[in-house]
Amino acid sequence: MARREAARLLRRLGPLAVESWTRGMPHSQHESANRIVNSCRRFHWIPSLQRPLCGPTTSGGIYEGQSSAKKACEVQKHTFGSAATHIQRNPAYSELNSDDVSYFKSILGENGVVQDEDRVAVANVDWMGKYSGASQLLLLPKNTTEVSKILSYCNTRRLAVVPQGGNTGLVGGSVPVYDEVIVGLSGMDKIISFDNVNGILTCEAGCVLENLSNFVENEGFIMPLDLGAKGSCHIGGNVSTNAGGLRFIRYGSLHGSVLGLEVVLADGTILDMLTTLRKDNTGYDLKHLFIGSEGSLGVVTKISVLTPAKLPSTNVAFLSCNDYKSCQKLLLAARRSLGEILSAFEFMDHHCIDLAMRHLEGVHNPLPASPYKFYVLIEITGSDESYDKTKLEAFLLRSMEDGLVADGVIAQDISQASNFWRIREGISEASVKVGAVYKYDLSIPVEKLYDIVEEMRCRLGDSAEVLGYGHLGDGNLHLNIVSSKYDDNTLERIEPFVYEWTSAQRGSISAEHGLGLMKAEKIHYSKSPEAVQLMASIKKLLDPNSILNPYKVLPQSVL
Amino acid sequence: MARREAARLLRRLGPLAVESWTRGMPHSQHESANRIVNSCRRFHWIPSLQRPLCGPTTSGGIYEGQSSAKKACEVQKHTFGSAATHIQRNPAYSELNSDDVSYFKSILGENGVVQDEDRVAVANVDWMGKYSGASQLLLLPKNTTEVSKILSYCNTRRLAVVPQGGNTGLVGGSVPVYDEVIVGLSGMDKIISFDNVNGILTCEAGCVLENLSNFVENEGFIMPLDLGAKGSCHIGGNVSTNAGGLRFIRYGSLHGSVLGLEVVLADGTILDMLTTLRKDNTGYDLKHLFIGSEGSLGVVTKISVLTPAKLPSTNVAFLSCNDYKSCQKLLLAARRSLGEILSAFEFMDHHCIDLAMRHLEGVHNPLPASPYKFYVLIEITGSDESYDKTKLEAFLLRSMEDGLVADGVIAQDISQASNFWRIREGISEASVKVGAVYKYDLSIPVEKLYDIVEEMRCRLGDSAEVLGYGHLGDGNLHLNIVSSKYDDNTLERIEPFVYEWTSAQRGSISAEHGLGLMKAEKIHYSKSPEAVQLMASIKKLLDPNSILNPYKVLPQSVL
Repeated sequence: MARREAARLLRRLGPLAVESWTRGMPHSQHESANRIVNSCRRFHWIPSLQRPLCGPTTSGGIYEGQSSAKKACEVQKHTFGSAATHIQRNPAYSELNSDDVSYFKSILGENGVVQDEDRVAVANVDWMGKYSGASQLLLLPKNTTEVSKILSYCNTRRLAVVPQGGNTGLVGGSVPVYDEVIVGLSGMDKIISFDNVNGILTCEAGCVLENLSNFVENEGFIMPLDLGAKGSCHIGGNVSTNAGGLRFIRYGSLHGSVLGLEVVLADGTILDMLTTLRKDNTGYDLKHLFIGSEGSLGVVTKISVLTPAKLPSTNVAFLSCNDYKSCQKLLLAARRSLGEILSAFEFMDHHCIDLAMRHLEGVHNPLPASPYKFYVLIEITGSDESYDKTKLEAFLLRSMEDGLVADGVIAQDISQASNFWRIREGISEASVKVGAVYKYDLSIPVEKLYDIVEEMRCRLGDSAEVLGYGHLGDGNLHLNIVSSKYDDNTLERIEPFVYEWTSAQRGSISAEHGLGLMKAEKIHYSKSPEAVQLMASIKKLLDPNSILNPYKVLPQSVL
Repeated sequence: MARREAARLLRRLGPLAVESWTRGMPHSQHESANRIVNSCRRFHWIPSLQRPLCGPTTSGGIYEGQSSAKKACEVQKHTFGSAATHIQRNPAYSELNSDDVSYFKSILGENGVVQDEDRVAVANVDWMGKYSGASQLLLLPKNTTEVSKILSYCNTRRLAVVPQGGNTGLVGGSVPVYDEVIVGLSGMDKIISFDNVNGILTCEAGCVLENLSNFVENEGFIMPLDLGAKGSCHIGGNVSTNAGGLRFIRYGSLHGSVLGLEVVLADGTILDMLTTLRKDNTGYDLKHLFIGSEGSLGVVTKISVLTPAKLPSTNVAFLSCNDYKSCQKLLLAARRSLGEILSAFEFMDHHCIDLAMRHLEGVHNPLPASPYKFYVLIEITGSDESYDKTKLEAFLLRSMEDGLVADGVIAQDISQASNFWRIREGISEASVKVGAVYKYDLSIPVEKLYDIVEEMRCRLGDSAEVLGYGHLGDGNLHLNIVSSKYDDNTLERIEPFVYEWTSAQRGSISAEHGLGLMKAEKIHYSKSPEAVQLMASIKKLLDPNSILNPYKVLPQSVL
């Protein structure tokens, strides 16, 4: 495109209008864009109340001795998206009895011990309805001491435990596999302190991420992470799974942002590492063991985290590219040109957009129904509204001239920006609505990242739809394969191919979601035997009775 | 100051002139400023060749059986700046014999086995001449396999080992305490790969930081860390000590930047965690165990690290403030106003400046000899030279109007910027020239950070000079106490007071330097007994014979 033409189109950008640079939209489309009033930028996950697809319901009382264990043994025989077919209930674990329940009531009170079938059923199943257990007890501690007493007791009694935050995980890490006692952290949701000079937040693990986000924003700061599930997920779960999300490209990993933790170990020991210091090289930095270990080494109870200053200017652009190579080049150009103000670089293929348009209410493709194969969402955040916007426009102008961008729009107000984000964040929600979704979360060198999507499409033909999207700026692909129902044939064509392919690229089979139950037995695709062995040794050191989140993260064979 | 007056003075800033905003400098001073031609921004540490202040020399041959061990037992009886008085040589360690040396020659060749007294003597003592050991053998492996063979052998033979990088540490962590075999990594200095799309550098541990810095800068990137010792320190040592330094405020900790490591464990096992992925949640993230554990859990042999894009514009200002409160307010204002382009915020009290002027050659106070109590160095790095400079000037103008800044200059060229940095980075070098320096590296909440300096000054009176400086943006104080010679009276007035005071503020007694030998026995001032116990358990798990860097990091009582 000639520079003059591109400049003319950029100048046409008016207030409160979503405009295409390369062609004018029909008036009705403008209106439609402006009608989208979505005051909340992100949506909430609602934990699914539907019954698990596989495994029995959890009806039936407890205290039936062998019968409850037998019932539990029926579950998890078959889960799709990496089957956990061969896992048997570990007979070393005790079964819950009435004395146990009495003890828990003595420390937590009646309200802290949930046996109500419906409430326990919700906690037994993940939000996708894909992983389910048969726990008969949900405990709701109110403070660290109660967590400590629970774990100390369970460790002595050899009762297996699954810690549960917002239960928004995607790999079956936050629900029981058999009859593990569920320890829900939702009652521990207090903000302990906020240092508004240094931006250091200290809070309990059960705080919902969005609540923390709102709180620190009022103080002029932002949380260093943001993800689609923010309305339900807990900060404790975020830390325990080392959640990545949408701000990773700017603010990096929680290993960098988390300053301190309080953790309860399997034997009930309270490990106080809750410093609020930016730098602390006093001995081994133990907190990192608990960031991303998915509750299998300890239960995170308190967190201190560094929150970046909230910058006043945010701009979001929604762009299309003709090919994947252009997306890559655009990323490199954005890093160079937008540098310090780049805060998100997300990509989606057109299958994702089509799916989002079909299944998400109230969202709207800001670009004309199109022949474009790829879409990119770029967000910049800085301290100078007009300068930042000028910089973004200049960058986009150059990118169009260089042929990297085919078409695009810059959001003119918060509702348009919300719409752009809603498309990107809604893909996961839209996928689930198709019926069955096989989800993979891969780190792959950027230049090869889309190859697996195309190869998978060839392998599966018409039997399923293959979606590729994710955090391109972090080399993180979300590969979703959707079809009307789960079936073994499809799974066999996906796995182990997807893991073998990723392993061959020295990629990671779990970029930001964790291994959970889904991929515990797949760890060797990304980790050396020596590394897995050391992980197992550390697990045995910290949790010798293996009561914490069993069957997850590590293969049974090494424990 | 009136806005008009401040603006007028700002306008006076001419090219290639260092100017004070509040008053004109004499012409000779301008000339002097312009004469400072220092093409290299940072200086190099030269490992000291002087004899250790305490302990015997290492003269005398090896293979003398008991005699060498006895000789070794004489050393480290007394080191100042946290005495290691009570540590005895661990009799569980074997003594080196001629068979050992023959074996090492068989795997490393003659050149890899150094017995020359002068060369070994240099490796036995730290650059300050403060900590010294009596090792009789320096091994120089050329690759990971050789490191593995060395450790495997030493583990079997129970020979204690000290891994050594550039030997620029400040806490006695990189030199032997007794007769440990020194494993120097300087022969492993290859750059393995550089991904110039994603800015991911993979290299061997013995690469000198400055060499890496130059290499990636040629590719359009920068190293995420920078420190005064860059000309000598190794990246492996930086990782093993979790070095902080001057870019921490912008790019954070190595826990966030390091993507992968290769580490050799005590038994010779090579642990391959050398991924180059930004995100990897596949199992426990073991690499964090080795970042900051000071070589006591394994020897880091390869590193992959994320390097940020090099931004074209850097500006440096050197300012004075009338009181510490103004420094704090200036920090807060800088975070708000400079936000995404702030890349350093360093502070120094006037004692530091006076000392630097007395002892450093070729440096020059860019501000008039003054009544100011505090000095602040601010660096901004961004992508737009003129915009960034305008922004900095506007910020400084406001800060002067608000009374936060008393006087200040912006460097007009690289040599002036180098001079500013040389003052800040030269304080450590200048301190050593006085004779004796008791060095403390503390993390303390910013609002209380300077209190300890003033309290210490009261405690010591005229007997020593107390300097306070450091990375204010990270809450990291370097407290240096200098006098003509070490003496017990001074030490007793400093310790344990300095640790008790820091502990009372929930601060860290080791912000970025590590514990080393100096503070191994002081760990309880910053860490809970449970945490120290877990550290010890991890040490025993990874190094059951305790051959790696003994007497350091953890108290002997827990091992």
